[in-house]
Amino acid sequence: MQEKLREHFEKIISLTDEEFAFVLSHFTFRKFKKHQYLIQQGDPVNHTFFVVSGLLRLSHTDANDKEHILLFAMEDWWVSDDHAFLTGTNATMSLDCLEDTGVFCITREDNRKLFAAMPKMEHFFLKKSHFGYIALQRRLLALLSSSAAERYQQLLMQYPSLIQRVNKTLLAAYLGVSRETLSRLTS
Amino acid sequence: MQEKLREHFEKIISLTDEEFAFVLSHFTFRKFKKHQYLIQQGDPVNHTFFVVSGLLRLSHTDANDKEHILLFAMEDWWVSDDHAFLTGTNATMSLDCLEDTGVFCITREDNRKLFAAMPKMEHFFLKKSHFGYIALQRRLLALLSSSAAERYQQLLMQYPSLIQRVNKTLLAAYLGVSRETLSRLTS
Repeated sequence: MQEKLREHFEKIISLTDEEFAFVLSHFTFRKFKKHQYLIQQGDPVNHTFFVVSGLLRLSHTDANDKEHILLFAMEDWWVSDDHAFLTGTNATMSLDCLEDTGVFCITREDNRKLFAAMPKMEHFFLKKSHFGYIALQRRLLALLSSSAAERYQQLLMQYPSLIQRVNKTLLAAYLGVSRETLSRLTS
Repeated sequence: MQEKLREHFEKIISLTDEEFAFVLSHFTFRKFKKHQYLIQQGDPVNHTFFVVSGLLRLSHTDANDKEHILLFAMEDWWVSDDHAFLTGTNATMSLDCLEDTGVFCITREDNRKLFAAMPKMEHFFLKKSHFGYIALQRRLLALLSSSAAERYQQLLMQYPSLIQRVNKTLLAAYLGVSRETLSRLTS
């Protein structure tokens, strides 16, 4: 488990054993069962999470009780309600487990301390943040410019395993189409 | 001009006169006329830009020659084709001026050198990147969950001055609706 976190950091920065031990001391490992919530819309958000195993859904339920899926977080992803986590406000999104899930958690305070003590962790998260931004920009562009059929094909190509792990109702909420439209695309 | 850049950095980090002079030495200031391109889709992207004055459009033209607007960049915004800038690949977006525009430019290489020499610049850009990510997430959520009328109202509230500065054809391309739909919303 710890090795997964270390390998993940070492894709971008190098860490001595002592440095990694120091980094690790800011995290706690937790297991959640399928259907458990890590964040509930409306509640305070005290942690950001690194997914070691399993699958999570980050979603927003609107005023009409319709659920919209921002993203599915798999192994090696960082996920939280970023706005709430960074600003200390309450969640406008929920994060729940679609499979049994193992995560490393870090609090806002420990995150701040880690950054202050180790500038190269900011370097790491700047890179991650850039690539998260780019991925989101591509998704936005796909929503603006592609048909539902094209968006489904893109998803298939980008995350082939996701299609196996997520049911069609959820995929439809992610793609921003009705369940019926998705069935037509995939039948 | 330089003061605008300094004030912008000092919203998040503090800089001595010597430090700011060092930071500034990595940037060049350039002026562009309305209709000029800073980035053209398909070309290499060597700079990221800080907007001192004016208004820019970041857009993608799809295979059917339809234009989609990712964002409008105004005073105090950082803008580039981030994916192309960060990875050294060719642009999948264009960046052009909707008004006469003044920008500070930094190259990928100078950006790298600045980060290596001054970790607090990474701290600055990590904060900016986080808030850019959050803004993009909200836009994505709005596209998934809101009607065109609601998205137009959100834009009015968030950037009232933008509505005065951008014509309706461009606003429609940003909101992901037809020009006719937008006319109905605003008449």
